[in-house]
Amino acid sequence: MKKAVVLLSGGLDSATTLALAVKEGFACRTLGLDYGQRHRSELEAARKISAALGAVEHRVAKLDLTVFGGSALTDSGIAVPTEAGEGIPVTYVPARNTIMLSLALAWAEVMEAQDIFIGANAVDYSGYPDCRPEYLDAYERMANLALKSAVEGKPVRIRAPLIHWPKAEIIRHGISLGVDYGLTVSCYQADEAGRACGRCDSCRLRRQGFEAAGVPDPTRYRD
Amino acid sequence: MKKAVVLLSGGLDSATTLALAVKEGFACRTLGLDYGQRHRSELEAARKISAALGAVEHRVAKLDLTVFGGSALTDSGIAVPTEAGEGIPVTYVPARNTIMLSLALAWAEVMEAQDIFIGANAVDYSGYPDCRPEYLDAYERMANLALKSAVEGKPVRIRAPLIHWPKAEIIRHGISLGVDYGLTVSCYQADEAGRACGRCDSCRLRRQGFEAAGVPDPTRYRD
Repeated sequence: MKKAVVLLSGGLDSATTLALAVKEGFACRTLGLDYGQRHRSELEAARKISAALGAVEHRVAKLDLTVFGGSALTDSGIAVPTEAGEGIPVTYVPARNTIMLSLALAWAEVMEAQDIFIGANAVDYSGYPDCRPEYLDAYERMANLALKSAVEGKPVRIRAPLIHWPKAEIIRHGISLGVDYGLTVSCYQADEAGRACGRCDSCRLRRQGFEAAGVPDPTRYRD
Repeated sequence: MKKAVVLLSGGLDSATTLALAVKEGFACRTLGLDYGQRHRSELEAARKISAALGAVEHRVAKLDLTVFGGSALTDSGIAVPTEAGEGIPVTYVPARNTIMLSLALAWAEVMEAQDIFIGANAVDYSGYPDCRPEYLDAYERMANLALKSAVEGKPVRIRAPLIHWPKAEIIRHGISLGVDYGLTVSCYQADEAGRACGRCDSCRLRRQGFEAAGVPDPTRYRD
């Protein structure tokens, strides 16, 4: 069976990505990153989703990005915005996808997987530069110059199957594949029980997605 | 004063790189990575070197790469070779430079530094693919698509000033800049006091470098 590493944050997009990778026939290892994020309940969500969708194994890499700060998600002194603004929002975490993909690379190489899945999306998204296709293409090119396995003839592929899908399409695909979106946590400031604020950028995109898909929203909101 | 992040492992190459960055007029922040490496004394060496060469600050990011294993440096079940072999040796750590540069990117973006220095060398080296200039070029290109700061007009530069220098030239430059190589630890299996085995790949390259430079070797060997 082909092996894959799937980055699994515990949100809607990465859960759907895992379901797609499983459907494609991959034996999936899922990887979470405990980076000191505010919304810690997503870590527990990731563990449940990994098991529910039949991944072979789930691991969590621990790396304290609060030592660098610079984001509303890693610095408790920066508030999460509750209204849409201009430009790239303060919830952007410096180099987050670059760091997460790098850890996935390490694991993929050790277990001889050539496919790495990430739930990046460049349609209904917050505008983070490290979610764009040109970034992912450049990452793949770099990775294939970095890895011993790639240099020795087994290149990796960075797979982002959701990259061009609107949120509603992601949700419709996920439902057809049996994803239980009630398990997923998207909110940037979810509480310990995984209940969403309903107001942050991530909550807004998610809610609009369920509306546009015509699917009941299973999100647990705290008020 | 211009700011830079300098990756500082505690070895000969990264110490020289720091000296070059300081000489160039950068206010340097040095970054070590505690990844569960066998040769833990290099972490203490990095701290001393950072202070001795006048860096502004030294930080250590902690990330346990032993959860992935796959290298003689992170898996105690794989021995460090003491003779030169063919191909890329087992001391190769999957995606190590990619991970370290990614952390440097995060810190650089938060403190608005555009220069990141790494002591990569592709002449007297162990043959790791992530030390080659083509890899570093691809990394820089990827980074400038990943970062908010780069997208907003402040690109980063990945600087590897030693990349084309033989080890002896690195040492001669370092000595002229006041690097105390007695503080550096290169050995892959240095003991707690930082004493070198004298037999691993890294020790061999280092010893040959001092001989070729005609400079007394200050390395403390354990036998």
